[in-house]
Amino acid sequence: MSKPTKPPLTKSHGRKTITATLQPRDLMGEAPQLANAWRVKVVTLFPEAFPGVLGASLTGKALQEGLWQLETIDLRPFGEGKHKNVDDTPSGGGAGMVLRADVVGKALEKAQQGTPTDRAKWPVIYLSPRGKPLTQAMAQRFAKADGMTLLCGRFEGVDERVIEEFAIEEVSLGDFVLTGGEIAAQALIDATVRLIPRVLGNQASTEEESFSDGLLEHSQYTRPAVWKGREVPEILLSGHHAKIADWRQEMAERLTKKRRPDLWRAYCEKHDRDPEEDQEQ
Amino acid sequence: MSKPTKPPLTKSHGRKTITATLQPRDLMGEAPQLANAWRVKVVTLFPEAFPGVLGASLTGKALQEGLWQLETIDLRPFGEGKHKNVDDTPSGGGAGMVLRADVVGKALEKAQQGTPTDRAKWPVIYLSPRGKPLTQAMAQRFAKADGMTLLCGRFEGVDERVIEEFAIEEVSLGDFVLTGGEIAAQALIDATVRLIPRVLGNQASTEEESFSDGLLEHSQYTRPAVWKGREVPEILLSGHHAKIADWRQEMAERLTKKRRPDLWRAYCEKHDRDPEEDQEQ
Repeated sequence: MSKPTKPPLTKSHGRKTITATLQPRDLMGEAPQLANAWRVKVVTLFPEAFPGVLGASLTGKALQEGLWQLETIDLRPFGEGKHKNVDDTPSGGGAGMVLRADVVGKALEKAQQGTPTDRAKWPVIYLSPRGKPLTQAMAQRFAKADGMTLLCGRFEGVDERVIEEFAIEEVSLGDFVLTGGEIAAQALIDATVRLIPRVLGNQASTEEESFSDGLLEHSQYTRPAVWKGREVPEILLSGHHAKIADWRQEMAERLTKKRRPDLWRAYCEKHDRDPEEDQEQ
Repeated sequence: MSKPTKPPLTKSHGRKTITATLQPRDLMGEAPQLANAWRVKVVTLFPEAFPGVLGASLTGKALQEGLWQLETIDLRPFGEGKHKNVDDTPSGGGAGMVLRADVVGKALEKAQQGTPTDRAKWPVIYLSPRGKPLTQAMAQRFAKADGMTLLCGRFEGVDERVIEEFAIEEVSLGDFVLTGGEIAAQALIDATVRLIPRVLGNQASTEEESFSDGLLEHSQYTRPAVWKGREVPEILLSGHHAKIADWRQEMAERLTKKRRPDLWRAYCEKHDRDPEEDQEQ
């Protein structure tokens, strides 16, 4: 052994934590599990990046309260040879390195201990620009599961065979390339955890309902009533709740039509409206 | 004063840092600036969340090497009153809280010290689900600027007047709702910083070129040649470079057609191809 102590293979965050120990038996044990908490396991080369922002604000408070539970699984110790290599050159040549199926497979086998095998109850997700773009509907589906396992890639990606073997769902954050999957994983966890009952508490807002209706949200204003010569729109100070609701709806529609013709077309189809109708009338 | 010491208003990461001091003059001074480094300033209620994952791996190495520079601007000290309130209830009613224009405005004025006023050279971006979806082309545009300022929202959003006053560009990570803008900011920074010359170094890969061509990337394989009875496709072990390139191209096209009909239609239009052609022939 080159090192006197080993870091733990898995680390859980929030109410209960596993700390480093010299006993390999404990290292390989299950992370403690909170009853009824939604759980997420993250396979990553950068476990120290978690919980990151998720440890702050409402998601952090909910983590402390045990409403959800986060466990990181360090990919490195599953690596091959003295240097614990996790990747190798692409078959057939090309730039970059590919995460090995055998190495990732061992980490995923570790992750699936104590989790349901039904992918509807426990999705296993690889964050990748090749995946289906993350949507609010997807986050709602994940929040209704018992939990999920996330695989964070690095380099050129992961050997395709591990995706097939573990029936992994590929999810993309969008049409851009990130250095690794960790930030995407945090975004996916954030979008999901905030939908778990009691996480948002009194902060529960209408924004996700607005989004699931398929429109961008109307503009918001608050005090002061005048700032740098710019006034809060008069209607918002009128006290006419019905008129305010109409104004906001019209604004949301206009904004969506202008910025996101794709969403606007889908909204019109759903509500049997003509996408070309002139709202200015 | 309720507290004996104040945290610094701004904090820079990487090669040079500002540390806490009792002298208000220094607190309000400019963060040290590295010559020629691409710079990003982040206005946030959670400065401790940065650099987060960006401090690891290649982006972290590049930060240490001074290829880019990160400065966080804590929004809290710009708040109003004893409790440094940064938000207030929405004009016209509704759930949640809205970030105040005057408070955010002061933080943005602080951020724009020493930056170009030309928004092409220095975009000011608000991360919001109402924005234009982030794309690789957008990240390329930001990487060519001198730097950028990012505003991370929380709650129900920010007063619309501050967006108008500062000619802020709204950028969305995708059609899902996050608790705040911090994770989205980190995704945007990651996608941009990796495009800055010398950041990826020898790890420079073909993936972003692949993406900018508009296709999802083909599947990847590496050693071992057989794993759990699953073999690396024979063609990849053949050594026929031209055949391998053809196989990968066909695979990328098939995958894109299946998973992302939107990208496939755009690709076909660009390459004067029929999107309905049968690739199986």
